[in-house]
Amino acid sequence: MVSDLRQHRQGASGMIRRISFVILTLVVLAGFQPASTGSFNGFELVDKTGNIRKPADYRDHYQALGTWAVLDPTGNQLHVVYASPGAAEYYRKNGKFGDGTVLVKEVYGTDHAQMTTGDAYRAAAMIQWFVMIKDEKHRFPNSGLWGDGWGWALFKADAPDKQVATDFKKDCIPCHVPAQSTDWIYVQGYPVLKSK
Amino acid sequence: MVSDLRQHRQGASGMIRRISFVILTLVVLAGFQPASTGSFNGFELVDKTGNIRKPADYRDHYQALGTWAVLDPTGNQLHVVYASPGAAEYYRKNGKFGDGTVLVKEVYGTDHAQMTTGDAYRAAAMIQWFVMIKDEKHRFPNSGLWGDGWGWALFKADAPDKQVATDFKKDCIPCHVPAQSTDWIYVQGYPVLKSK
Repeated sequence: MVSDLRQHRQGASGMIRRISFVILTLVVLAGFQPASTGSFNGFELVDKTGNIRKPADYRDHYQALGTWAVLDPTGNQLHVVYASPGAAEYYRKNGKFGDGTVLVKEVYGTDHAQMTTGDAYRAAAMIQWFVMIKDEKHRFPNSGLWGDGWGWALFKADAPDKQVATDFKKDCIPCHVPAQSTDWIYVQGYPVLKSK
Repeated sequence: MVSDLRQHRQGASGMIRRISFVILTLVVLAGFQPASTGSFNGFELVDKTGNIRKPADYRDHYQALGTWAVLDPTGNQLHVVYASPGAAEYYRKNGKFGDGTVLVKEVYGTDHAQMTTGDAYRAAAMIQWFVMIKDEKHRFPNSGLWGDGWGWALFKADAPDKQVATDFKKDCIPCHVPAQSTDWIYVQGYPVLKSK
């Protein structure tokens, strides 16, 4: 009887261990789903010295903030801006981007054609990507890619995974100066920051 | 001893029941996360007679397919196209949109300004929304809003929740005829249908 009880206990604790493993697996799987709020894990893209990787699969998993059509006699462009999941909801609630939020701006050349709605321009060849990561804690004071509340990165189409900016004050900030009062971001182009 | 064993069994089975409840809760919570693939639940937006609602919160939870800049002397527009989660991944694998996929096209008027990158146009006032739901099963043969493999709907900014199309063959298809060979969708404007 004692032996029976011991076996029973071992069986029950084995089952509890197995169930616990299932729970852990489910929790991990749930963590890999794109979360609707709060997954500001941009620093997963950053190594110890502050080098920034471009996020994989952002087209599938990030949310669109908005698109700029930039008209230029030498070739019109589309600038398509994505944010990490939950970024807009956080912004609407708090009036700012959450620490660790990732923004990706795609810069495309365009093709165009007379279509049923007019002279329509669409994204064609990719030119480059800008990536920014919100950093409230000034984590990399010695890096030329971090400052003014963000990490800054640039990737060009001929080497899409190679970060090529060296000094954000020269390579990035100049184009953002007019947006300094809105934390360097041209938020007026992103309707989702105001309403769902 | 028998009584001990019975108590132990009850204790263990109670714990297993509680753990099972935790598992169930986690599974349910995981189900409420936006899924990365396969959640083609567009028919949740459709009533028994085929009336189509505009999805709430698509700006936060859908993925961007692409944006068209439509240049017009009477006012440039931006047409921003979203798809329900997982739509692009399914399309890349299968070469078509999955049954129940929802597409939303926002039509915006634009503001523009000389900015650091050029003459930049951005979304301003919303004009209207087009909503399409992929229907492989010809579910509503008697509805004027369903046919050619899709449900078709139109919502205007002055009454954003009121569907106003009455006959997709008059209200919708004419603008899509040039895209008939690609299932009525202008897929050439949506890079994410080709690569992540």
